[in-house]
Amino acid sequence: MGDCLFCKIVDGEIPSEILYEDERVLAFKDVNPQAPVHILVIPKEHIESMNDIDESNSHVIGDIFAIMRGLAEELGIEKDGYRVVNNCGRFGGQSVSHIHFHLLGGRQLSWPPG
Amino acid sequence: MGDCLFCKIVDGEIPSEILYEDERVLAFKDVNPQAPVHILVIPKEHIESMNDIDESNSHVIGDIFAIMRGLAEELGIEKDGYRVVNNCGRFGGQSVSHIHFHLLGGRQLSWPPG
Repeated sequence: MGDCLFCKIVDGEIPSEILYEDERVLAFKDVNPQAPVHILVIPKEHIESMNDIDESNSHVIGDIFAIMRGLAEELGIEKDGYRVVNNCGRFGGQSVSHIHFHLLGGRQLSWPPG
Repeated sequence: MGDCLFCKIVDGEIPSEILYEDERVLAFKDVNPQAPVHILVIPKEHIESMNDIDESNSHVIGDIFAIMRGLAEELGIEKDGYRVVNNCGRFGGQSVSHIHFHLLGGRQLSWPPG
């Protein structure tokens, strides 16, 4: 947790382009965007991955989805559409061990999703 | 809603391979799997897409993530990892207008996610 890149972004130790922040959630631009709009949305609490989600902490995931829906509107991608992706572990391609949701839009996303 | 494919699956009018069911959520196999494990998880309530999520109904999304995490364990994909995808609208590639989450595992998922 002390070495977690996203915890450092939450703490402001590492700069990021922040688009949304409240007490529990932070949204910022992905530094390696895969689409014209590519935002990461995270809980501020250090939850490692989807494998650590259960009834005790799943409420923040619902909050994150409501926030992403608002961001999609603000960013003007809600009408054309977008994709939300969560990667867990090696096969999922998770690159940072702090659960994060990718919000991708501004271009046609293809299938399969990786 | 009367013509919604996933509402018909919820009602049992159209058969599916169900893996999980409670009062609010249903999980079943995708008929066009894109990975060795490819499950769809939906709220039983007809919510059209991510664009219809707000604070009033986001709790079920958190529930769905806790359920997907349990399914990942049951299906033996939690250690190698997996990806969760939600498509919204045309650019997202949403094919059924009833919000659904794809749980994909059993192979390495690539980047970008479509």
